[in-house]
Amino acid sequence: MKIDGVPFRTIWPAEDGRAVEILDQTLFPHRFEILRLSGMDQAAHAIRVMQVRGAPLIGATTAYGVALAMRVDATDAGLAEACATLLETRPTAVNLHWALERMKAVLAPLPAEARAEAAWAEAAALCDEDVAINAAIGDHGLEIIRAIAAKKPAGEPVRVLTHCNAGWLATVDWGTATAPIYKAHDAGIPVEVWVDETRPRNQGAFLTAWELGRHGVKHKVIVDNAGGHLMQRGLVDMVIVGTDRTTARGDVCNKIGTYLKALAAHDNGVPFYVTLPSPTLDFSVQDGFDIPIESRSGREVTHLAGMTASGAVEEVRLTPEGSEGENPAFDVTPARLVTALITERGVCAATEEGIAGLFPDRAAA
Amino acid sequence: MKIDGVPFRTIWPAEDGRAVEILDQTLFPHRFEILRLSGMDQAAHAIRVMQVRGAPLIGATTAYGVALAMRVDATDAGLAEACATLLETRPTAVNLHWALERMKAVLAPLPAEARAEAAWAEAAALCDEDVAINAAIGDHGLEIIRAIAAKKPAGEPVRVLTHCNAGWLATVDWGTATAPIYKAHDAGIPVEVWVDETRPRNQGAFLTAWELGRHGVKHKVIVDNAGGHLMQRGLVDMVIVGTDRTTARGDVCNKIGTYLKALAAHDNGVPFYVTLPSPTLDFSVQDGFDIPIESRSGREVTHLAGMTASGAVEEVRLTPEGSEGENPAFDVTPARLVTALITERGVCAATEEGIAGLFPDRAAA
Repeated sequence: MKIDGVPFRTIWPAEDGRAVEILDQTLFPHRFEILRLSGMDQAAHAIRVMQVRGAPLIGATTAYGVALAMRVDATDAGLAEACATLLETRPTAVNLHWALERMKAVLAPLPAEARAEAAWAEAAALCDEDVAINAAIGDHGLEIIRAIAAKKPAGEPVRVLTHCNAGWLATVDWGTATAPIYKAHDAGIPVEVWVDETRPRNQGAFLTAWELGRHGVKHKVIVDNAGGHLMQRGLVDMVIVGTDRTTARGDVCNKIGTYLKALAAHDNGVPFYVTLPSPTLDFSVQDGFDIPIESRSGREVTHLAGMTASGAVEEVRLTPEGSEGENPAFDVTPARLVTALITERGVCAATEEGIAGLFPDRAAA
Repeated sequence: MKIDGVPFRTIWPAEDGRAVEILDQTLFPHRFEILRLSGMDQAAHAIRVMQVRGAPLIGATTAYGVALAMRVDATDAGLAEACATLLETRPTAVNLHWALERMKAVLAPLPAEARAEAAWAEAAALCDEDVAINAAIGDHGLEIIRAIAAKKPAGEPVRVLTHCNAGWLATVDWGTATAPIYKAHDAGIPVEVWVDETRPRNQGAFLTAWELGRHGVKHKVIVDNAGGHLMQRGLVDMVIVGTDRTTARGDVCNKIGTYLKALAAHDNGVPFYVTLPSPTLDFSVQDGFDIPIESRSGREVTHLAGMTASGAVEEVRLTPEGSEGENPAFDVTPARLVTALITERGVCAATEEGIAGLFPDRAAA
């Protein structure tokens, strides 16, 4: 997507071909800096300290991390060590694991001297595939937005509510939930986005607002409490969210608070869409409540960083001394509350049949 | 309620009888200071800058403001001027208006020389009535908590979720939503409270957590996004919230986000109670959606104050430059989602019949 008119991805090979470059996401939304990753250790560090975040982008950075390692030591030992180092950066990230397996499968059979070039090409392919998946999701979602726009008075914007950051900053490009929004904006359909700030980590206020604003998409930041009221008053035409993991029957595990928005959408007849890149489909689980929910540090609730009037980024404590926070990171939206899933292969019902219909190859596996 | 073992109200006559004292609520939760209001102007200032807040406490401070003014100038002109000054502090506060009407009704017929003493007594009576109303709400709510506790294994706490601050800091004592909780705690029933932080003004994290902690009630602060998930997982036994205004048929206008919690409670079979001091009943409105909703400054969404590591209270900006906030302050929870209303006269259904049954005098008026 564009940053103030200039097209960007979240990760790309440096011009000299000797490194990859990323946007340092720990500085968002207050500072914008490009970071050069010249070696595997720097890639691992970037993942560990969340200079890159979002499952697809973590996968892409992992792949480039392996590629950078192969330039230094392409032996079997070198490959094993690179994979071990990268795996430890964020042990629970599914895409990290997946990217390593993919790189190993390509590289292991090759002679050492062929590995560096092959790794570089495979990392680039992996990035391009992520972009293609998200662009396809965007195209399918665009048609839904177009249909809603057609029913509104000419020129009146389609108002989309989104939660968290399933934006291009979490992927290589387009994002998932944002892909239909960018496609609609680029197609000249007026869209306006309600951006849930998404406590406790404020990915909406920090990241989604930033990327929408830089690309030129109209938006307003709201507290997570506000969406239900806006729906009651007819101010939301559709909800689009991403997902961390969706089960075979269509239960959607996503950022904490998604479920509350799904309830409100259902109560007010507002369509609730989940953009679903098929790698996040988990056919091994039926019931979303079987997904274990990560409980993160309560400190994320009780403390918050922002920019002071003097321009420094500082952390402040919100709660009184002695009051602790509880911090479940995800919740499960039951399939019954989901209007449809928007995948790279098309739109389907959030049901076992709907999903299997689009992904018969994987459902049968 | 108690602050670290010492009983307090939020407003009380100074020992020397020449002033009233309050807790400076602008400093919560990071600093605790008692403020002496020696004249009407200081009372007006305290209301204006929200050193006192919460409808009942604003009413009580208004009454004492009039009483302080009568000591200086108890003529008809003095009374009129005091009322005019106080009315301008927060023009939309219903209790402020109500307290002024009440003071005028008592004082106007009296000779000037009798007004100072009568005003002081009337202000004290108004405070005592608020305490009595809330204590009665607490007693009725206590029985509900007791019944829930009786169904749980012995010693297992009753887990109550609350939103915003309908606590004793918003009233003269007990609070409304917190009154049943304090009564249960004081009666030895183990209770644990999930405190919604309540963005954007964080009254839960700032005030409810503070007052529960100081009184010794177990609690954890959660983001507003978390309550639905906790209910899905069986970790909430009941929800208790306050209300700013409830219609004749039981639609509940309360802090933004209340509606989302009511939806989640309904979806998970968790009882959802609204504590309702009868002065907040509005028999002139049936449909809650006829209540105009205050839209506050977007800056409350985009900026937030807290305590830095160095102990200073500083405001930080959360959003990127150029992203604005939208900030509806209240929402309406339809009566169908409310399990029951807990009033000072007892518990009733959130229906026209239920409310009229407890308040036949007012419903008929």
